[in-house]
Amino acid sequence: MTAIDPSRASTRTRMRVRFFETDLMGIVHHGSYFTYFEHGRVEWLRARGVTYADWAGKGVHLPVVEAHAKYQAPARFDDELLVETTLTELRTVSLRFGYRITRGDVPIATGYTRLACIDASHALLRMPEDMRAILLAAEVTKT
Amino acid sequence: MTAIDPSRASTRTRMRVRFFETDLMGIVHHGSYFTYFEHGRVEWLRARGVTYADWAGKGVHLPVVEAHAKYQAPARFDDELLVETTLTELRTVSLRFGYRITRGDVPIATGYTRLACIDASHALLRMPEDMRAILLAAEVTKT
Amino acid sequence: MTAIDPSRASTRTRMRVRFFETDLMGIVHHGSYFTYFEHGRVEWLRARGVTYADWAGKGVHLPVVEAHAKYQAPARFDDELLVETTLTELRTVSLRFGYRITRGDVPIATGYTRLACIDASHALLRMPEDMRAILLAAEVTKT
Amino acid sequence: MTAIDPSRASTRTRMRVRFFETDLMGIVHHGSYFTYFEHGRVEWLRARGVTYADWAGKGVHLPVVEAHAKYQAPARFDDELLVETTLTELRTVSLRFGYRITRGDVPIATGYTRLACIDASHALLRMPEDMRAILLAAEVTKT
Repeated sequence: MTAIDPSRASTRTRMRVRFFETDLMGIVHHGSYFTYFEHGRVEWLRARGVTYADWAGKGVHLPVVEAHAKYQAPARFDDELLVETTLTELRTVSLRFGYRITRGDVPIATGYTRLACIDASHALLRMPEDMRAILLAAEVTKT
Repeated sequence: MTAIDPSRASTRTRMRVRFFETDLMGIVHHGSYFTYFEHGRVEWLRARGVTYADWAGKGVHLPVVEAHAKYQAPARFDDELLVETTLTELRTVSLRFGYRITRGDVPIATGYTRLACIDASHALLRMPEDMRAILLAAEVTKT
Repeated sequence: MTAIDPSRASTRTRMRVRFFETDLMGIVHHGSYFTYFEHGRVEWLRARGVTYADWAGKGVHLPVVEAHAKYQAPARFDDELLVETTLTELRTVSLRFGYRITRGDVPIATGYTRLACIDASHALLRMPEDMRAILLAAEVTKT
Repeated sequence: MTAIDPSRASTRTRMRVRFFETDLMGIVHHGSYFTYFEHGRVEWLRARGVTYADWAGKGVHLPVVEAHAKYQAPARFDDELLVETTLTELRTVSLRFGYRITRGDVPIATGYTRLACIDASHALLRMPEDMRAILLAAEVTKT
C-alpha cells in the first residue's frame, strides 16, 4: 500500500440537495448519498486534472466494488452540503476514497467506496505509474 | 403511417411504487412516471417476444425523442398500479406509445413517448419489415 | 391569463451531468431531463427570492400536473449544460414554465411543465397576489 | 441482542433490472443496489403482514442509519435477480438486515443496512413488543 500525503489527499465540493433526491420521509433518501459521494469523487479527480473520459479513453476503468455510508443527521431539500473527499488507500489494483458530508457545523454522513482498477475486458489492471502519480499529487485546480 | 389494429396494440403490466420513487411531498415524484412508462414499454415488447438486447444486437435502437405526461391523481408508496401501454403510431422511422396508469378505478396519469428508429451510428433507420411485423402482431406471451 | 414581461421572465442556470443520470446507451436517460427542468425551476424561484420552504410554509404548493420534453441531441456524462427557464403562462390557479437546455451552441432539449396551485388539503388555490407579484418581477439575485 | 431463529429470518424476492437503473458503463449503477435492498426489505416486511403505512401510522419509523454493499459481478438491464433479505440483528432500538443478490448461480452483491427505531419527533424508541414479535415470526404470506 502506497503512503499518501494527507495534506494533498482531500478535495472539498459544495452541492445543493435537489428535490427528487428526497423521499416521503421529507429527507434525502439514503441511496442518494452514494451519488453525492460519486459527485465528490468526480470533482476530486477533476481538481487533479483527470476526467472520466481521459482514463476510460486509455482503457482504465475504476468501478465501485464496495460502498459504505453512515448517516448522522438528515439532510433536506435545498440544503447546501459540503462533500469532503479523501484518497485513503492506494493499492496495486484498487483504491479507496473516504467521504465526509457536512451542513455548516452539522455532520450529515460519512462513508467510503473502494474502486477496482480494471481494463476494458474487466480484468484487474495494475494501475499505470502516471495515473498513480496524479492520484498522489496535490490539487491542480480548485473545483 | 401504418394502420394499427387496436385489439392487438395494448399490453397491461402491474407494478408497485417503490419507496425511493416518492419525494418530500409524500407522493411519487413526477419524473418517476417516465420510468413507469419505460417499464410498460419494456413489458409490451417482451409480450411480443422482443428484448432490448435482441434489437440492439441487430443494430436497431429506439431512443425516446419526445415524452409527455399528465398527472391526474397522486400515487403513493406501495400503491399497486396498472400500466396500460399501447402502440398508437407506427411510421417509417419512428413510433409512438401511449400510456394510461390507474390504481383500481382511479386514473393516475396518462402520457406518451415518441421513439426514433436509429442505427448504431445514430442515423435514422427505416424500421426493418420483420420488426414492423412484430410490432403489429398480438401479444405472444402474457407478461 | 396574466401578461408576462419577457424581459423579466427567464433565468439561466449552469449544471453538469452526473454519472448516475446516464444509462446503458451512454447518454443521459430521458427521464433525468425532468430533474434538470426541476433544477432550473428551483433556481428560477431562488433568483426571485423564493424558496420551496417559504411557500410551503404559507400553505401554497405547486405540484407538476403536466410535463413535456423534446430531445434534440444526446447529453453525456460531465457535459456542462445551460438550462434556461422561462415563465410562459400565469393563470389564476396554474402556471407554466418552459425550458431550453443547450451545451454551448448545441440544442439538447426543450420542454415545459404546468404546475397547479393547491393548498395543503390538495384543493385548487387562487394564487395569492403577493406571490403573483414575485413571479412577474425580475430576478433579484443571480443564481 | 435478541436471538433470531435463522429458519424464519429470510425472505426471497424476485425482481428485474430496469433500464434507468443502468449507467454508461452498461451495468447497474452501484447506487441502485440500495434501492434493491430496500425493495427486499419492503417485501420481507410484507411477507410478515407489515406495511410501511401500518407502522408509520403507529408512530414508529425505521430510517436507515448505516448501509453497506459489496459488488461481486455486474448486473445488466433486464436481468432477473433474486434478493434474499435476512434479519440478522434485533436490538432494543435498532435492527439490521443482510442482503444477498444473485442471478441464477452467480453472486451479484451482498450488503446490509442498519435501521434505527425512532418516533415521529426523531427520538430513539424502544421497539414495541408486538412489533418485535412480528419481526421474529416466520413469513405469513409468500411475496
